Amino acid sequence: MRMIDIIEKKRDGYELTTEEIQFFIKGYTDGTIPDYQASALLMAIYFQGMNHRERKDLTMSMVHSGDQVDLSKIEGIKVDKHSTGGVGDTTTLVLGPLVASVGVPVAKMSGRGLGHTGGTIDKLESFPGFHVELTKDEFIQLVNEQKIAVVGQSGNLTPADKKLYALRDVTGTVNSIPLIASSIMSKKIAAGADCIVLDVKVGSGAFMKNVADAKELAETMVEIGNSVGRKTMAVISDMDQPLGFAIGNALEVKEAIATLKGTGPQDLTELCLTLGSQMVYLAKKAESVDEARQMLISAIQSGKALEKMKSFITSQGGDATCIDDLEKLPQAKYKIELPAKASGWIEKMMADKIGLAAMQLGAGRETKESKIDLAVGIVLNKKVGDPIEQGESILTIYSNSENIEEVKNLLYHSIKISHSKISPPPLIHEIISK
Amino acid sequence: MRMIDIIEKKRDGYELTTEEIQFFIKGYTDGTIPDYQASALLMAIYFQGMNHRERKDLTMSMVHSGDQVDLSKIEGIKVDKHSTGGVGDTTTLVLGPLVASVGVPVAKMSGRGLGHTGGTIDKLESFPGFHVELTKDEFIQLVNEQKIAVVGQSGNLTPADKKLYALRDVTGTVNSIPLIASSIMSKKIAAGADCIVLDVKVGSGAFMKNVADAKELAETMVEIGNSVGRKTMAVISDMDQPLGFAIGNALEVKEAIATLKGTGPQDLTELCLTLGSQMVYLAKKAESVDEARQMLISAIQSGKALEKMKSFITSQGGDATCIDDLEKLPQAKYKIELPAKASGWIEKMMADKIGLAAMQLGAGRETKESKIDLAVGIVLNKKVGDPIEQGESILTIYSNSENIEEVKNLLYHSIKISHSKISPPPLIHEIISK
Repeated sequence: MRMIDIIEKKRDGYELTTEEIQFFIKGYTDGTIPDYQASALLMAIYFQGMNHRERKDLTMSMVHSGDQVDLSKIEGIKVDKHSTGGVGDTTTLVLGPLVASVGVPVAKMSGRGLGHTGGTIDKLESFPGFHVELTKDEFIQLVNEQKIAVVGQSGNLTPADKKLYALRDVTGTVNSIPLIASSIMSKKIAAGADCIVLDVKVGSGAFMKNVADAKELAETMVEIGNSVGRKTMAVISDMDQPLGFAIGNALEVKEAIATLKGTGPQDLTELCLTLGSQMVYLAKKAESVDEARQMLISAIQSGKALEKMKSFITSQGGDATCIDDLEKLPQAKYKIELPAKASGWIEKMMADKIGLAAMQLGAGRETKESKIDLAVGIVLNKKVGDPIEQGESILTIYSNSENIEEVKNLLYHSIKISHSKISPPPLIHEIISK
Repeated sequence: MRMIDIIEKKRDGYELTTEEIQFFIKGYTDGTIPDYQASALLMAIYFQGMNHRERKDLTMSMVHSGDQVDLSKIEGIKVDKHSTGGVGDTTTLVLGPLVASVGVPVAKMSGRGLGHTGGTIDKLESFPGFHVELTKDEFIQLVNEQKIAVVGQSGNLTPADKKLYALRDVTGTVNSIPLIASSIMSKKIAAGADCIVLDVKVGSGAFMKNVADAKELAETMVEIGNSVGRKTMAVISDMDQPLGFAIGNALEVKEAIATLKGTGPQDLTELCLTLGSQMVYLAKKAESVDEARQMLISAIQSGKALEKMKSFITSQGGDATCIDDLEKLPQAKYKIELPAKASGWIEKMMADKIGLAAMQLGAGRETKESKIDLAVGIVLNKKVGDPIEQGESILTIYSNSENIEEVKNLLYHSIKISHSKISPPPLIHEIISK
């Protein structure tokens, strides 16, 4: 088998065989196939696409390129959730304790990564003492006892995906649905969960800019997951404006606490109930999605969900008294309001630009070496569709520097006020299951 | 300027600016742009194409990536001829002396290269003593005195093209008309001729398998040449069967001698007169193409063309007495006939497979290290459309080994005999000028 023949076959629009896809992934991972041939194939895939069988084979070849996590010692059906990027996305912080409180085991492996804010682990480190250095046995024992634990990514999961992703990033081949879908699904499958709930974001702050593309990506991933024996479903949710109010690490932790108490933002709460009820249903803790949703609402109202958050934080060494005394979480030196320059209705709050502003404040990593400031970020006071008066604060900036003219400018450019009434956008566009 | 933006722009179907194309060629030549980004761009060009302005800019950026030959000290208008591959293509050996004999200066730089047979220099080395080691001044003086000289390629011509060609060869991006056209034209322009006559081959033994593609390639090259001030025209000629009868180095030299005497194969003679009359006309040695053709026919009939061959070979140290005594040229040990297995009419003589058979006999180089056997090769006794009797020889194999069962098998597989009458294919499909 020769790589040049595989490139030309795909270039000419033919289907690659299972063996050809395995040959490519194996050879690229072990270095016998050079970058320049891989990038030519990726560009050919960009133009010619891949059919279902090819996408499934690509996904599974990447799964087999490295280790796979064995979660079989955890009791019950393990359900993983994945959100495709987004800005101010606090769902993971809420969903973990929420579904664990009704008995769904949450065995979360997480990274730190680059982005507008830190990863889930960074956010959780807002609790003084919280740590994720657990052995595999400790991790599994914690999930069995607490129904929830978070551990840093270890082992050599999907090395093919890591190498391919780095190449796609510099060769204009990121934005291809078969490549995105197989990349995400290979990581989720290697991470060992029985069921996968996908939260596919759409809008200015998301990878997918329109609903048609988001739907195609969601359907592709659901199809891959189900075809390899992992029950998979997807929710397509809006990311044209940030989700919830908070963008920033400790700020999102506070928002998650409020949501678990039942006093969180309406959109964040609704999305968490939608995703969470699917997770509970897939984990067979409820007979129907509706019953699952009622269980979650009860867990919030009874305080069980918040109690689960406390015991989870405590079990990983964190100071859970922060949950009752939010002042103990990292606090920014300055709180600066952003007054509206005109009266009207909020027409746009561009999630990507607002995310960038949060990163400029220090909330996220631009490079692997960047240090994150857990205290800083942005809290929206208005959302799209809300009326506003000139001079009223659109949002509050939490900063450790007073000199933030550039950030303010960027934020003004990311917000549009209309003279006529604007309807709030739909939060959930579609639910895709098989 | 960033390479990733250039890749994405072309991927999305936009036109690249002159500066972007220059940035790519300069960066790729000096190594600041890596192979994997170059191959992604090449594949995007494969799918999205390039418009006239982009093709011209790509060509000239490659010309400027290295040295350019200065032929200004040669008197008269310099015309270069280029054939796009082919099997048994003896045109260069005939055309050089032929047009030089009517006063057109032929300043030929040639390589050795890989292929079914050797390059022009290899073939000319069939004359004992012939050499191409000339200084630049000697070369120019010879052209001025003799109107013809051949020199080995020296200097650093179009290094960008060399590097890109090697990359295209292993990334499935060879077969793209803008890339082929700019590669050929950059080399011809850097080689310094005032006018360029292109012989674009079409058929099984050529790069272009159908007339529509060959026409597009020819038109693209003619347009590039004329837009940068080099008068350019193209002839589209058949390469479904080999041109002439001979495939092999000394065998083709003998055929060239016969053609210059007026006793060569009909197709080779006709193509040489067609290409040659265009060269003479572009060099302004005739008022019309018809007049040029008559001049060339006269040069053959009067013996002037053959005399020019003799003085050319002598001036570069070769033994020109071989021309009158062909036995002095390299001779193969064995002459083996290939008898027809059935009676009928020759329907196909697949040029690519016959070329491969010649290479297996030792006539060409498979790798740079291969040693060429100048004596061996194939001489066709029949061509497409000819009637044949069972047992009659289709072709004669000139070999230095008796053990050639494999070659014979390959040859039988490359020839098809029909029960019904077959018309010979057209030799010249189209002439393209501006």
